[in-house]
Amino acid sequence: MSEEKEVFAEISPADFFYRNRDIAGFSNPTRALYAAVRELVENSLDACELHKIPPEIYIRVIQEETTPSGAGIYKLRVEDNGSGVPARFIPSAFGQVFYGSKYRLRQTRGTFGLGGTMALLYGQITTHKPARIISSTGTRRIHEIEMMIDIQQNKPEIMRHKTHPNPEKWHGTIVEFNLEGDFLRAMPKILEYFKETAIVSPYMSLIFVDSRGRLYRFERATTKMPLPPTETKPHPYGVDVETIRRIIYLTDARDMQYFMTRHFHRVGRTTAKKFLECAGISPKTNPKKLKQAEIVKLVQKMKSYDGFLPPDASCLSTLGEELIRAGIQKELNPEFISIEVRRPAAYSGFPFIVETAIAYGGRVPKTGDILLYRFANRIPLLYDEAGDVSWKVLHTLINWKHYKIGFDLPLAAFVHVYSTKIPYKSVGKEYLADRPEVEREILNGLREAARQLSIYISRRANIERDKRRLDAFSKYLPKIAHFSTDLAGKEEEPDIKPLLKSVMKYGAEEDEEEA
Amino acid sequence: MSEEKEVFAEISPADFFYRNRDIAGFSNPTRALYAAVRELVENSLDACELHKIPPEIYIRVIQEETTPSGAGIYKLRVEDNGSGVPARFIPSAFGQVFYGSKYRLRQTRGTFGLGGTMALLYGQITTHKPARIISSTGTRRIHEIEMMIDIQQNKPEIMRHKTHPNPEKWHGTIVEFNLEGDFLRAMPKILEYFKETAIVSPYMSLIFVDSRGRLYRFERATTKMPLPPTETKPHPYGVDVETIRRIIYLTDARDMQYFMTRHFHRVGRTTAKKFLECAGISPKTNPKKLKQAEIVKLVQKMKSYDGFLPPDASCLSTLGEELIRAGIQKELNPEFISIEVRRPAAYSGFPFIVETAIAYGGRVPKTGDILLYRFANRIPLLYDEAGDVSWKVLHTLINWKHYKIGFDLPLAAFVHVYSTKIPYKSVGKEYLADRPEVEREILNGLREAARQLSIYISRRANIERDKRRLDAFSKYLPKIAHFSTDLAGKEEEPDIKPLLKSVMKYGAEEDEEEA
Repeated sequence: MSEEKEVFAEISPADFFYRNRDIAGFSNPTRALYAAVRELVENSLDACELHKIPPEIYIRVIQEETTPSGAGIYKLRVEDNGSGVPARFIPSAFGQVFYGSKYRLRQTRGTFGLGGTMALLYGQITTHKPARIISSTGTRRIHEIEMMIDIQQNKPEIMRHKTHPNPEKWHGTIVEFNLEGDFLRAMPKILEYFKETAIVSPYMSLIFVDSRGRLYRFERATTKMPLPPTETKPHPYGVDVETIRRIIYLTDARDMQYFMTRHFHRVGRTTAKKFLECAGISPKTNPKKLKQAEIVKLVQKMKSYDGFLPPDASCLSTLGEELIRAGIQKELNPEFISIEVRRPAAYSGFPFIVETAIAYGGRVPKTGDILLYRFANRIPLLYDEAGDVSWKVLHTLINWKHYKIGFDLPLAAFVHVYSTKIPYKSVGKEYLADRPEVEREILNGLREAARQLSIYISRRANIERDKRRLDAFSKYLPKIAHFSTDLAGKEEEPDIKPLLKSVMKYGAEEDEEEA
Repeated sequence: MSEEKEVFAEISPADFFYRNRDIAGFSNPTRALYAAVRELVENSLDACELHKIPPEIYIRVIQEETTPSGAGIYKLRVEDNGSGVPARFIPSAFGQVFYGSKYRLRQTRGTFGLGGTMALLYGQITTHKPARIISSTGTRRIHEIEMMIDIQQNKPEIMRHKTHPNPEKWHGTIVEFNLEGDFLRAMPKILEYFKETAIVSPYMSLIFVDSRGRLYRFERATTKMPLPPTETKPHPYGVDVETIRRIIYLTDARDMQYFMTRHFHRVGRTTAKKFLECAGISPKTNPKKLKQAEIVKLVQKMKSYDGFLPPDASCLSTLGEELIRAGIQKELNPEFISIEVRRPAAYSGFPFIVETAIAYGGRVPKTGDILLYRFANRIPLLYDEAGDVSWKVLHTLINWKHYKIGFDLPLAAFVHVYSTKIPYKSVGKEYLADRPEVEREILNGLREAARQLSIYISRRANIERDKRRLDAFSKYLPKIAHFSTDLAGKEEEPDIKPLLKSVMKYGAEEDEEEA
C-alpha cells in the first residue's frame, strides 16, 4: 500500500470561521439567531456610546419562510443612531474577517472585530442572499450597499452601491440580512439579553418587533450617558517582545527616556529614568539601535520592575453602586442587596474593575442554588455559565457555611467585569478565563457582599426572635398588669409600654427592615 | 468637543491569535507550556498514525534561564518518527496561521491547523529566538530550517536552510524552540496528559526528559496499530450553500445524478435518483447551470430528505471494548468496569462514535464526586471540565438515585468521542459543545454503564447478605448437628454441606465476583 501523502493548504480567516463556526457561537439555528442579534446590537451600542449618543436601537425579525427542518429563514434588521460607518469602510467592516475598529486598548463590547461579519457570513451560507448595509456619518449622503462575502478570499463582494441625499443629517447604521434561525427557541434568550442589557445600559432605548409582530419596548431610564471609555497606551507589565518591536518600528523617539514616557501607560520622566537605570540601559540610547537580546532583556525587566504605577482605570466606564442597585431593584425587587465595588486592579498590564452584588428575597426565586448574573463591559453573558470564573468562585471558592448562608434561600449574585481587554475564553464571548488577578477580585467582592448579607440575615433572625418574645410578653403582660392591679385593689393599671420596649434588643422590626 | 472618529484596520490571522492567545489556550506561562507540548505531540502522533507508523516520540525540556517573574525560559524539543514534512511546506506549516494539512474530513487530533504555529508564535513573542525544524520524508536529504514568524504579515521568515544527507532514510520531524513557561506548575498536567495519552494510544512509545534531567518512559503495550482513519466526502445532511457552491465550481460532473453520487457520502445511483425526484430537480440538469435560488432549495431538501443512509463510521478509528478495559485496568485497577460502546451516529452530517465506561472501586479514589476522564479523537482533555458536555450529562442529566449509585462511592466515568469533526467549543480544544446528537449518545452510553454498575452493586449487596447468613448458619449448624447426633445417640454426624448450600441464594461469592 502506497502511503497517502499529506496535502497542505492555506485557508482564509473567513474560511476558518466558516468551518469552525461553533467557536464563534454560531453552532445551531437557535444559538446562531441569538448570536447574530447580539453581535449587531453590541456593534450598535458601541457606535453610540463611544460618541456619547444616547442609543436608540430598533430590531425587527421577520419570518421569510419555514424550512422543513423546523427552523425558519428570517430577515433580521438592526437600526441604530450611532456614529455611522464611512462608506469606504462599509464593505470591509462587514465583509472581511479580522477587519474592524476594535483592535485598540479601549473598553468596548466588541473585542474580536469579528461579530458583525460572522453574522452576515452565517446568513449567507444558510440563505445565500446578499446583505444590505445603510449608513451615514451625518454627512450629506446616506450610502446603501448590497454585498456578499467571498469566503475563500475573505473579501467583500459589492453587488450594488446607491447613495441617497441626507437633508436631516441622519447618522447611524442599518444592517439587514436573511439567515436561518429557530426563533421560537432563541426568543427567551434574546429577550433575556435585551432585559439584562437594559439593566446595565439604562440610557439605552430599544424597540424589538418579533416575527409575530409583537412589539417590545425597553425605554431609557435616563439620558445621562456615562463618560465614553478612552483609549490607553500599553502598560509596561503587559508588553511582550513583539509589542516592543512594533513600537520601535513606528516610534519617532530618539532616546529611551522619551520612548518610555511616550508609548507606555503611567510612565513619567522620573519613572522612566529610574526604570532604565535599574534595567542597565542608558536613557540616551536610541531605541532603534537596540539589539534583539537587549529587547528581550528590556521586556523581562518591564515585567519584574516594581516601580511602575499600577494601570489607571479612569479609561474604564463603570456603572457604580447607585445604578447597580437601581438595575437589580427594577429587575428583582429584592428584600436586601449588598453591593461591593472593587478598586481598580490589573492583569497582564490591562486595567480592570469588578463590581459584585448579592440580592436576597423579594422576587428572587428559590432554586436550591444561587442565581448568577454575569456581565462584561455591559454585555450580559447568558450561555456556558459553568465555564466562567464567577461560577468557579461561587461554587468552589466561597465557603457559604462560613457566612451561614444556605442555598435554600432565594439568592442571586451579580458580577460585572470591566476592562480594556476582557479575558474571554472563546470567540463567542460567553465566559471569562480564570486569570488569577480577576478571580481574586471577584472572590473578594462576593465575599464582602456575602458578609454584609450574612449580617443582615442574622439581624433579621434576631429581630424575629425579638418579635416572638415581644408577642409573648404583649400577650401576657396586660393580663398580669390587669390581675395585679385587681389584686392590689387599685384602679389604674401600670403602663407596660416601657417594659415591652425593654425586652426588644434589636429595636422595632419596621425600622430595621429598611436598613 | 470634536468627536473621535473610528479607526478601521485589518489584522492578519497571526496577529489575531497573537492578540487573543487566551482563546487558543496560551493564557499564562503554565498553561502555555502545557499547550505547546500538547500541540506538538499531537502533530507528531497524527504524522505517525495516518501512515500506520508505530509512534516513537521523544520530548525534552531544558531550562535556559530563570526570569525574575518566577517563570523561566525553556527549550522544548519534540522528535517523532512520523511521515515528515516535505521541505517546501515546512516554513508555512510552522510559520503561518491557517495553513496546514488538517482541513479535511478525517479523524485527526489536530482540527484547526493552528497548534504548531501557535506554539512557535508564543515562543517567539516571549523569547524572540528563532525556531528550528528538522524533517525528512525518508528521501535522500534531511532539511534543517531556522525560522521566525512575521506576525503582522502572517508569513514565515526563513533565517537559515541547511540540508544533510540521509543515508538511513530516516523520516520524521524534530521541532526545537524556546519559550517562557512555568515548568513546575505545568508538570503535573503534562505528565497526566502523557499518562492518559498512553492509555488511549497503547501502540505509542514516548520518552520524556524533564528540566531536571529525570526520564519518564511510556512504553508501548502493542505494536498493533489501529487502521488509519480515512478521508470521507461530506454527508448531504451536513452541507450548506457555500459547500455546494464550492463543489459546483470544482466538479467535472455534467449531470446532477452523477454530481450527487460523486461528491457526497453514502449516495449511490438509486438514492441520488430518488432524492432528485423528491427535490424536483431533473437528474439530467447540469450542476453548473443551477441558479442561486435552486442551490438554496437543494440544500434545504438535503437537510430534510429522510432517504439518505446515515453517515458511515468506518472512517473512524476507535479503541473498542478490549482496549478501553485494558487501559482503565492498567490505570485504576478497579473492582468493576462497565463499558458501553455506542453505535455510530451523526451530527450535521459528521459521523461520530461515543465510547463510555464507569469504573468502580480498586484504585479509584473516593472524592465525593464522580471522577471524569474525557477524550476526543484520542486526545485527553484536562482543562475546563465544567464546560464540557460530558460534565453536563454526568451532573445534570443522569438521575443517579435511580441507579442507587451515590457519589460517596469510588467512581470514575470515561467518555471518548471520535469524529471527523469534534465539536470543540474553543480553539484550545479543551471541551465539547452540547450538540444534541452527541449529548444524547453520551447520555445513553453512561446510562447503560450506570445500569450495569447498579446491577453489580446490588448483586454485591445481596452476596454480602448471603455471606452474613451463611456465616451464621455455618457457625451454628455444625453445633446443632453435633448435639442432635449426640442426643440421638448416633455416631455419625449428618452432612450439613447440602443444607448450607441451599441457603445461598446468589452462589459462592468467589465465583460471582468475577462476573
